[in-house]
Amino acid sequence: MNILITAGGTSEAIDSVRNLTNHATGSLGKVIAETFAEQVDTIFYVHGPKAVLPNNPAIKFFPIASVRDLEKTMQEILTTTPIHTVVHSMAVSDYELDYTTSEIDLAKNLADMISTKSPSTKDELEKLIKTALTSNALASNTGEKKIRSTSEQLIIALKKAPKVIHSIKKWQPTTQLVGFKLLVGVSDADLVAAATDSIKKNKADYIVANDLENISTDKHEALIINHQGIKERCHTKQDIANTLLTLIKQEG
Amino acid sequence: MNILITAGGTSEAIDSVRNLTNHATGSLGKVIAETFAEQVDTIFYVHGPKAVLPNNPAIKFFPIASVRDLEKTMQEILTTTPIHTVVHSMAVSDYELDYTTSEIDLAKNLADMISTKSPSTKDELEKLIKTALTSNALASNTGEKKIRSTSEQLIIALKKAPKVIHSIKKWQPTTQLVGFKLLVGVSDADLVAAATDSIKKNKADYIVANDLENISTDKHEALIINHQGIKERCHTKQDIANTLLTLIKQEG
Repeated sequence: MNILITAGGTSEAIDSVRNLTNHATGSLGKVIAETFAEQVDTIFYVHGPKAVLPNNPAIKFFPIASVRDLEKTMQEILTTTPIHTVVHSMAVSDYELDYTTSEIDLAKNLADMISTKSPSTKDELEKLIKTALTSNALASNTGEKKIRSTSEQLIIALKKAPKVIHSIKKWQPTTQLVGFKLLVGVSDADLVAAATDSIKKNKADYIVANDLENISTDKHEALIINHQGIKERCHTKQDIANTLLTLIKQEG
Repeated sequence: MNILITAGGTSEAIDSVRNLTNHATGSLGKVIAETFAEQVDTIFYVHGPKAVLPNNPAIKFFPIASVRDLEKTMQEILTTTPIHTVVHSMAVSDYELDYTTSEIDLAKNLADMISTKSPSTKDELEKLIKTALTSNALASNTGEKKIRSTSEQLIIALKKAPKVIHSIKKWQPTTQLVGFKLLVGVSDADLVAAATDSIKKNKADYIVANDLENISTDKHEALIINHQGIKERCHTKQDIANTLLTLIKQEG
């Protein structure tokens, strides 16, 4: 049986020296991989640039950086190799670069546009601004080598990145999917609601729902949730890894 | 003689899970520190979160993340300890977080503002938008725990961060300052111009000017420039470290 684990965080290039990163250490993915490694054939380990790496001969490594890299790599694996379970613990950016601009260029371009189209109501004006922002009309830069730091503001407009988790069951309908949901400073009910939503949207079998405020070096509180609700409650990374292994093996 | 070396890149928090990073590995700083370590008393090594670290008992480590952290740490060292030379190789962000917003909120707030003030000319309109962008009036979020990913766009407005290099000679006028200038895909003349500008602005004694396109694992082309122009031309990290050590010792 083959397992695909994603771990660490993605990194989107803003220019040749700047990156927008999701800072996950990948330490949960490492513990899961090392716990699973003795009981499976191969682990396909897809990881972000700065993730701590597990160590076991059963693990094959697939380094990625951006969400687009992640999408390509996972599609390649899932459309060519039978994968029993995908454990998708990577902190994937919801957004990728649309364009960058400055307060000077943005003001100039918007003022030009408003003056030309002269909207007659506030609603029309609002709509015009919104359309301008999401079009490329305002982009003074979509990937310059290195953005010069001459303006008072650097404005980075990000657009929605593809939802990789949404494609996993499309690429391989028979695989089991364990997703993750990280929120900050919320209740168990909020975690369950977010997890249930993800189970529906992404056809996930389990969601590991956790709160950043309840994660530290030696503690990792998490709820393992399926379509029926809370299935297990875990307190450490090792606990999460052991519980997932048991659940996955139960499903055959 | 004490040396202060900065290395790696800074990292600015956008929210509790996202960061804007300047991705420098810190490997040049490591080589410089290890080359200097045998010939100096103490190296104060101020480094970014992901920098590779040198190894020598003469090195004291000072980890930092944001530009504000860097400023505080360097001010503390330079106002209390005699430092012969500062080698400031860190990739420091020019910008830090101002606020984040969405295309929805930005359009709504701008339309409100324009409708209320109803500027009569295009210049007035442009000025109004520019003032709005750089004020906090448009901020729908200045450090929320985790930005929710509900809007089509996430707009990050960054403002100028303090120029730490500019303060080094103010904190300790007698220290020697070696600055760095990294450009991408430019000519030697551009490198010299940028370096000369930095020498004047920051009272730097030397600038190591380099082009990202001429840096790889085993090659690191760099010009060492002082107020008279190109002083030395280096081809590897070790070459840069040796040359800097010679120049610094010459100055006494």
